[in-house]
Amino acid sequence: MKPITLKDISEKLGISVTTVSKALKGYPDVSKKTRALVKELAETLNYKPNAFAVNLRTEESKTIGLIIPEIVHHFFSSVIKGIISQAEKKGYLVIILQSNESYDLEKKQLDLLVSKRVDGILISLANGTADFKHITDIMDQGKPIVMFDKIAKIVKCSKVIIDDRKAAYTATQHLIDTGCKRIAHFRGPLLPQNSIDRFLGYKKALEDNGMTYDPSLVYIFDDMTFEVGEMFARKILSEHTDVDGIFVNTDLVAIGAITEFNRQGVNIPKDISIVGFSNWFMSSAITPSLTTINQPGFEMGKMAFKQLYRELKAKKKKKQITPKIIELETNLVQRNSTRS
Amino acid sequence: MKPITLKDISEKLGISVTTVSKALKGYPDVSKKTRALVKELAETLNYKPNAFAVNLRTEESKTIGLIIPEIVHHFFSSVIKGIISQAEKKGYLVIILQSNESYDLEKKQLDLLVSKRVDGILISLANGTADFKHITDIMDQGKPIVMFDKIAKIVKCSKVIIDDRKAAYTATQHLIDTGCKRIAHFRGPLLPQNSIDRFLGYKKALEDNGMTYDPSLVYIFDDMTFEVGEMFARKILSEHTDVDGIFVNTDLVAIGAITEFNRQGVNIPKDISIVGFSNWFMSSAITPSLTTINQPGFEMGKMAFKQLYRELKAKKKKKQITPKIIELETNLVQRNSTRS
Repeated sequence: MKPITLKDISEKLGISVTTVSKALKGYPDVSKKTRALVKELAETLNYKPNAFAVNLRTEESKTIGLIIPEIVHHFFSSVIKGIISQAEKKGYLVIILQSNESYDLEKKQLDLLVSKRVDGILISLANGTADFKHITDIMDQGKPIVMFDKIAKIVKCSKVIIDDRKAAYTATQHLIDTGCKRIAHFRGPLLPQNSIDRFLGYKKALEDNGMTYDPSLVYIFDDMTFEVGEMFARKILSEHTDVDGIFVNTDLVAIGAITEFNRQGVNIPKDISIVGFSNWFMSSAITPSLTTINQPGFEMGKMAFKQLYRELKAKKKKKQITPKIIELETNLVQRNSTRS
Repeated sequence: MKPITLKDISEKLGISVTTVSKALKGYPDVSKKTRALVKELAETLNYKPNAFAVNLRTEESKTIGLIIPEIVHHFFSSVIKGIISQAEKKGYLVIILQSNESYDLEKKQLDLLVSKRVDGILISLANGTADFKHITDIMDQGKPIVMFDKIAKIVKCSKVIIDDRKAAYTATQHLIDTGCKRIAHFRGPLLPQNSIDRFLGYKKALEDNGMTYDPSLVYIFDDMTFEVGEMFARKILSEHTDVDGIFVNTDLVAIGAITEFNRQGVNIPKDISIVGFSNWFMSSAITPSLTTINQPGFEMGKMAFKQLYRELKAKKKKKQITPKIIELETNLVQRNSTRS
């Protein structure tokens, strides 16, 4: 069975397509009787208005695009859930693309979304993205973009973020407060702003507490995997036997490290204390459970869509959009990978 | 800056919109020189064809819909990743909706996707779905649907599945082979086919090994959470002290149970052995690591899109579609929550 069209209805009733269309929209120049008749038949036949035709008229697709570095990731999947739950409430659909942390892919996907005429775009940048022309080009076309989590400070769009520097400072301070004297940092990749800010928060906490910052204790890695955590745990044991605390920039890597330390008979938190970042679900399930920074993914997704929605409404009313920075609160979740 | 239209190009070059359109499509009735000129200008101005207009003409949106019960879920997020990676290769975009395991929401979302004129739909059913008219209605309209993981046997569409019964049999047989005499089953919700099949596989393995099936050892629950696992672990310890093996229908619940058993000083696998289902990432990170059935999520997503794509191509050629059942292989991953 092919979808029912206005023409089908008009033929069945022996009236013009225009009359059918007007009747469905409730125009008063069609008689009340005809309107009722058309509506009833449309319902019986399960008529659905053609979305593309509607779109051409309103210049709205009621669809937004979302580009995210990685879907199989507790934090990002929480963000996605927050976005689509909020979008659905406002009648928007969400097209999701994964950049795999690649700048080239991110650029291609942005173009694709624009060519598909999405109304706006939500994006968390790939680790590889250092140039932002592909984003500002789209903003110049008047298409609203909101960044979240992995943002570029230099781009003048709205952003939903946390204070990574402050959160990292809190995490490091907690290690110091619970007696750690020599604290390493598993920092993650070089480029993204959140990686830089977490590193700076770590460094500042050391300095404020009169501890020497030692660059050889900062481990850089591109792949934020469980295996990387295992590898760096082994490195710490061979290169820096005096390390008694580690601030890791993401839970997954911290969990890899804990697993390896357990294997090597290192007592956590007595020999080495560990703090993670993100509060992935599994952080509460491993042994010992992981002390970490709680990063509100679902909330971040919700707020990102809400801001985009405000901008879409403003655009419709031809109002100027003033970019907004929305900062969400984080907190330290104390568990058993640090001393009390 | 508004998006560039064919009209903008035609005005700049002083030629008709039709000529511009034909030039961009490379029609030979436009001179080679004009074609080159138009293409060059279109490129300079960053012209993008209007996707909606294209859609009206081809009756294709190059967009598919995906309805999934829950996004923050290792298995389903792997499936999503498989789907969008494959869709992107073929130039399709994916709109993702989450049914929250609710039949009503699933129904509403299917209607929404159809009204948005997606070309086809991929769906994993909500636990609450027992009636399938909302799905067969859409199939009757000639819109291809492919089900995966949580399917309805009665609906005559293509499906990508695993053999849940066989996998559950293997899991239970492994408990028996490693010495378990009294095996409980954390079964999950009543309705979905995979829950039924896993239960049947468990029961059959007991019977084939001459062990008595005891309904009081089968625990039913609607929410597949970590907390449910903790709760049932406590129940086992108070209600059935003779239980020495548990087959749990999903890893997350098994991990909750392990955490509670650890807390209560129960030795896994010596006192109680546990087998999960799905092979979530964290199953390898907890202590003891979880023996489980590996369920290929990414592969399932890929195959589901591939089948949908075959059906979209067949539909375009006005060929009949014969529904296909694609069964993927599973395997037992032996770790430390069972004896060797």
